[in-house]
Amino acid sequence: MNWKNDVTRLLNIEYPIIQAPMYGVTTSEMVKAASRANCLGSLPLGDLPADKCIEAIIATKKLVDRTFAVNIFVNTIPELTEDLKEKYTSVKKFIEHLAGHHNLEINLPKIEEIRTKNYHDQIDAIISEGCKILSFTFGNLDKQSIDKLKSNGTILIGTCTSVNEAIILEKSGIDIICVQGVEAGGHRGSFAEENIPEIGGLSLLSKVYDCTNVPLIYAGGIYNARTLMATQTLGAQGFQIGSLFLGSSESALKEFEKQRLRNLDEADIVLTKSFSGRYARGIRNTFTDSTELAQQILPYPYQNKLTNELRKIAKENNNVDFVSIWTGQSINEYSEKSTFEIIKKLIKAVDNNL
Amino acid sequence: MNWKNDVTRLLNIEYPIIQAPMYGVTTSEMVKAASRANCLGSLPLGDLPADKCIEAIIATKKLVDRTFAVNIFVNTIPELTEDLKEKYTSVKKFIEHLAGHHNLEINLPKIEEIRTKNYHDQIDAIISEGCKILSFTFGNLDKQSIDKLKSNGTILIGTCTSVNEAIILEKSGIDIICVQGVEAGGHRGSFAEENIPEIGGLSLLSKVYDCTNVPLIYAGGIYNARTLMATQTLGAQGFQIGSLFLGSSESALKEFEKQRLRNLDEADIVLTKSFSGRYARGIRNTFTDSTELAQQILPYPYQNKLTNELRKIAKENNNVDFVSIWTGQSINEYSEKSTFEIIKKLIKAVDNNL
Repeated sequence: MNWKNDVTRLLNIEYPIIQAPMYGVTTSEMVKAASRANCLGSLPLGDLPADKCIEAIIATKKLVDRTFAVNIFVNTIPELTEDLKEKYTSVKKFIEHLAGHHNLEINLPKIEEIRTKNYHDQIDAIISEGCKILSFTFGNLDKQSIDKLKSNGTILIGTCTSVNEAIILEKSGIDIICVQGVEAGGHRGSFAEENIPEIGGLSLLSKVYDCTNVPLIYAGGIYNARTLMATQTLGAQGFQIGSLFLGSSESALKEFEKQRLRNLDEADIVLTKSFSGRYARGIRNTFTDSTELAQQILPYPYQNKLTNELRKIAKENNNVDFVSIWTGQSINEYSEKSTFEIIKKLIKAVDNNL
Repeated sequence: MNWKNDVTRLLNIEYPIIQAPMYGVTTSEMVKAASRANCLGSLPLGDLPADKCIEAIIATKKLVDRTFAVNIFVNTIPELTEDLKEKYTSVKKFIEHLAGHHNLEINLPKIEEIRTKNYHDQIDAIISEGCKILSFTFGNLDKQSIDKLKSNGTILIGTCTSVNEAIILEKSGIDIICVQGVEAGGHRGSFAEENIPEIGGLSLLSKVYDCTNVPLIYAGGIYNARTLMATQTLGAQGFQIGSLFLGSSESALKEFEKQRLRNLDEADIVLTKSFSGRYARGIRNTFTDSTELAQQILPYPYQNKLTNELRKIAKENNNVDFVSIWTGQSINEYSEKSTFEIIKKLIKAVDNNL
């Protein structure tokens, strides 16, 4: 396989494999390993405040000597109405009660303690730190941000989960589109929060290839040479891989989480809004089941902020029933090897046409 | 591309392309066209009573001089409890009222008029008519039926929507597995009725290929050479195609339905239980939206039987708001050419590596 293409040229890498930005899983070491394999590492910044973004970028720059991508959530903040405040109190109580019932004593933040910000400060931080590749999800950047980033020479990678979203990204001058098939783990990158597209990668990638002229990265379900090569046939020039690294030595998952992944049945993998208020694919557990059933879910980012503390404490307690473990639909072996070795093995398999 | 493989050998065809059995769309003429293209035609029998199956088979045999597949729904009939009777009355009233509100005067059957049967009589009819290829969905055949069909020399094609379902089919000696990706139009072939798997073809096909040793047909999203070839890379030896024929000259869809398909936005395609009580992918309309919202849905086959008359009358009245138009996630051009020409064009495109 000839690996050189528009994506390797634009991102200045040898192999067009992108280590997916996985908030809570990706470490600076994982970014380093992907870079060392001559692929693109991605540092997830989610909706971190600007100062935390700068911290994470500096820490990663210390380890990684080539360009890596940073990834942010482009989300509009819903207005804090009286209804929302009331619902917040109800959800807070529900979660505290649920956790307490399972011997997890927590005190979640009051709504007054929640800091919400849109992504503009993050963009300034990213520019000030000299980051030259920015990927984003949950919508498109506004025109002003796009102009600012472009005049700074930043390559922009937008995420689509439908053909309509891809066309919006292309029209606004985004350099590369990451096509996220329904197979993908973690957050759906959909622009909308409700009635999101759930289109399989096979249809979506091929249709986006038909309807746009932008280089495409595919994300969702790639776990071996076969799946990678199929997405190339469908029109992808770049291959974003996430779940394959969940068990790697650089993953921030703890042993009890990796253990859960190794004992996974396909029916355990669900789409849930329970952790963040945005749909994400991961492993169902007591928390997702109970919260979905009771419909105790706030809009993003409030649900996300509210459950942060819960997840942190659950993780400290090795409590698999209250942590969020995101994963895609291709259950794999979750190799414990290093990210570097996993990538090298995949490249070799493709080159050997396995 | 070398088209000869286990699937062409088992099904005695030249090209391993299978015209999907689409109840309400596929005609004997469509089966004939697929056969004439040296591919496999499939006659949908759904849950028709045995005498109606025999009628349809005889009519098709008159037109088609090579072996075609017949397709049935393998569904258990839920017990007719008092609760179900009560719910039936409520749903009947709801639908009559909804249709009346939209100037569609209908009288739906009372529950006493509903005939429900499991598939055993259909199998006897199929054997008596000498059909040698049987495909089925909604579960696995029971052992007795499998033994009977096998001793009659019938090739069996089971449908899976998960790896677990594929393994069950393989263990019971099914000859070929049709892997149905989430992209597929029409009914989901899932064994369960609730919490069905919704796995993208990319993940599902490759994982089923990893986990079984049976020749695989792939169904869901194939609409051009690229998508067909990608599924070959993923492990498919056969390629089932349905939506591509919806607009064809042999399609039983009426002009107003084809017109609706030509003006389709991807967000119009949804999974709905509203027409049959089983999840199926098709175009949302007044009926699907209202019925889903009100949750006026009976288990299969009761919902299906109840809405039959509604759909028939809506079709007679060219009323797009109350017909079921199934389609997959790859919106295509819905060519008005013949099924024969559509297949030939696809084969040529694959051979030319387009």
